[in-house]
Amino acid sequence: MNYDQIFEKAIERLHEEGRYRVFIDIMRNRGSFPNARCFAGHNGPKPITVWCSNDYLCMGQHPKVVEAMEGALHDVGAGSGGTRNIGGNTHLHIQLEEELAGLHAKEAALLFTSGYVSNEATLSTLAKLLPGCIVYSDELNHASMIAGIRNAGCEKRVFRHNDLTHLEELLAADDPEAPKLIAFESVYSMDGDIAPIAEICDLADKYNALTYLDEVHAVGMYGPHGGGISERDEVADRLTIIEGTLGKAFGVMGGYITAKKTLIDVIRSYAPGFIFTTSLSPVLVAGALASVRHLKESVEERDAQQAAAARLKTMMSEAGLPVMPSTTHIVPLLVGDPVKAKRISDVLLMEYGVYVQPINYPTVPRGTERLRFTPGPSHDETMMADLVKALVEVWDRLELQLAA
Amino acid sequence: MNYDQIFEKAIERLHEEGRYRVFIDIMRNRGSFPNARCFAGHNGPKPITVWCSNDYLCMGQHPKVVEAMEGALHDVGAGSGGTRNIGGNTHLHIQLEEELAGLHAKEAALLFTSGYVSNEATLSTLAKLLPGCIVYSDELNHASMIAGIRNAGCEKRVFRHNDLTHLEELLAADDPEAPKLIAFESVYSMDGDIAPIAEICDLADKYNALTYLDEVHAVGMYGPHGGGISERDEVADRLTIIEGTLGKAFGVMGGYITAKKTLIDVIRSYAPGFIFTTSLSPVLVAGALASVRHLKESVEERDAQQAAAARLKTMMSEAGLPVMPSTTHIVPLLVGDPVKAKRISDVLLMEYGVYVQPINYPTVPRGTERLRFTPGPSHDETMMADLVKALVEVWDRLELQLAA
Ligand SMILES: Cc1ncc(COP(=O)(O)O)c(C=O)c1O
Ligand SMILES: Cc1ncc(COP(=O)(O)O)c(C=O)c1O
Repeated sequence: MNYDQIFEKAIERLHEEGRYRVFIDIMRNRGSFPNARCFAGHNGPKPITVWCSNDYLCMGQHPKVVEAMEGALHDVGAGSGGTRNIGGNTHLHIQLEEELAGLHAKEAALLFTSGYVSNEATLSTLAKLLPGCIVYSDELNHASMIAGIRNAGCEKRVFRHNDLTHLEELLAADDPEAPKLIAFESVYSMDGDIAPIAEICDLADKYNALTYLDEVHAVGMYGPHGGGISERDEVADRLTIIEGTLGKAFGVMGGYITAKKTLIDVIRSYAPGFIFTTSLSPVLVAGALASVRHLKESVEERDAQQAAAARLKTMMSEAGLPVMPSTTHIVPLLVGDPVKAKRISDVLLMEYGVYVQPINYPTVPRGTERLRFTPGPSHDETMMADLVKALVEVWDRLELQLAA
Repeated sequence: MNYDQIFEKAIERLHEEGRYRVFIDIMRNRGSFPNARCFAGHNGPKPITVWCSNDYLCMGQHPKVVEAMEGALHDVGAGSGGTRNIGGNTHLHIQLEEELAGLHAKEAALLFTSGYVSNEATLSTLAKLLPGCIVYSDELNHASMIAGIRNAGCEKRVFRHNDLTHLEELLAADDPEAPKLIAFESVYSMDGDIAPIAEICDLADKYNALTYLDEVHAVGMYGPHGGGISERDEVADRLTIIEGTLGKAFGVMGGYITAKKTLIDVIRSYAPGFIFTTSLSPVLVAGALASVRHLKESVEERDAQQAAAARLKTMMSEAGLPVMPSTTHIVPLLVGDPVKAKRISDVLLMEYGVYVQPINYPTVPRGTERLRFTPGPSHDETMMADLVKALVEVWDRLELQLAA
């Protein structure tokens, strides 16, 4: 048994497939997002523009958020010092949970250290508590939901992406008495399309299934108060559980679920991923609280972001770039090859100071490798024009296909 | 299928067993740990003394930590805005990983959002990458390691706590060619005893097994630079992986592993729990970096904490309280019943302003329910005398057994 050899081979495989990941070493500049410094070269940091941040609304530098975090740091300290049950439950945690429950018009909410953990912990625990449970999972569901379902050890049926007919086929084929759970996302972050939530709820009603909706890429972004697509479509009350993150549009870090009181109490009491870990730092909680509250009231950031995304899509299309169909704030550009996607990204960074990460397998299916742009309220017309110009040049130079 | 009924029954079971958890709503007061405010009553916050924090060295309020976090908040912003691969890799993350690798004299390190996630993600990924792998797990291992081993879907052998004979029996009984991994902790946090690391490494050498050591309750606390028990015992180089947290002695939040470069690269490249989640907030990373650096140089906090723990153990013993044998900084007091443990804790909080959480199943085995005290450098002689007096009174009032 030569362990080193096995580990080296595992790394070699990634190099061979052209999907070995090199993390770009950057620091965003507070006060001037999307500007950042890149430490990749050896002549000190170099200025770049970030085009792939999930801090969609630049809330990570919002004065209210920064001030709230500073306040908590001075009032409470750096960390919580314990699990939620043992010394790590601050008044701020409770306030944020109340705020999030309100955001989604649910009775209660529960915080986790991340969106990943909220999905993994909730789904694995829920399915274990319902003996014989069958989970119906959209084929494009995020890795964290897949992990939760897998770790539950329950039966799983994968339905074709957003395909109601297929979902119903699967539901109808199973024992009507078996507990059922449909797990899906609202905004699919790599394609930018949206699930038919109401229709999925109709099926859930018909087949007596629970529903679990990941709104990670929609909270703060859609709905009059930032309650996500389920708020926009006025279907929040039909969903059993709505899950979200504090690390994307809210600009901080952490995750949560919202649901009825009893269900939240069950997850709170049984999920190892919630129970056995130091709770979110009160500094993060205070920042997230300020961010959620601000975006409940203010539509300015949402509007500016949607306008920027629409503008960039138009400019890319007009330039003949292969922008993928997206009905949301996400702007994906198809490349279809992992080595080329990485190459384009490298040239953009090194020669144009443009930072956009190539998205390769396993984040997206092989053959659909892409660049994924997330323009925000601070990406202005000049930045966009420069970006499109750079893309057209690189596409030309690398002899890539333009759209018809 | 009545879902609500199932959830309600799950909660009822906890009430019946006396282990339904009510989170105490507190805020620690920066500048005067272990003092805090408790929001349980209805007359506004009430002052309490916290006796169960895992911010063992009060680093959560250390001026260097607070200053570093403030700096990052102003320089970079609240959150990282992305996964490590997509926009969320800051220069601070890289610096902290270098610092942690150095702390444990390893080639490389990898950050996770928590110690829980570092255990779960690393163990599940490692065992999957080694087909036929058998994991040998100490029976008192933390829930996060158990989850990782379970989620790997590999063979698992549980050895009796710190029992080298049993561990060797199990190792010897298996195929010598099978990949093997021994997973254990250095300081067991609920009992306060320490694993025989060198002897376990001897067995690992003899049977060609990898070793995985959780130093969550020892990093920052033991060894000349806070490198944990493995530094104190000079065995760090014999361990394959050393894991730690940034949320206990370091006072912030987050987790990590350290190991050889190739192994770190494998986990970095294959572990879903690392890849598919927003990276640690740069604010936390900056705080942890300052904390680790400080505790590498300064022994003052460690010494004061050890002195406080030793003093409290002596005072409790002299008062006839059933303090459990502990060779570390942890001071557990045996109760042996979940309802009584909760009752004592409630009386201490309500009548004496003493906050110590009851530790019940599943955190410890049934029948060994306890109170767990973690005196720190700021718990002074008067506080300890008051605590012991309160405990003796409550013990007497509730007719609990004193030690012989
Ligand atoms: C759909 C989806 N769900 C969950 C997550 C995890 O959220 P977090 O980054 O807060 O862990 C992500 C991305 O990271 C995601 O894209
Ligand atoms: C032994 C042990 N390992 C891991 C963890 C998890 O670390 P974290 O709190 O950083 O998630 C804990 C406690 O929370 C623990 O006691």
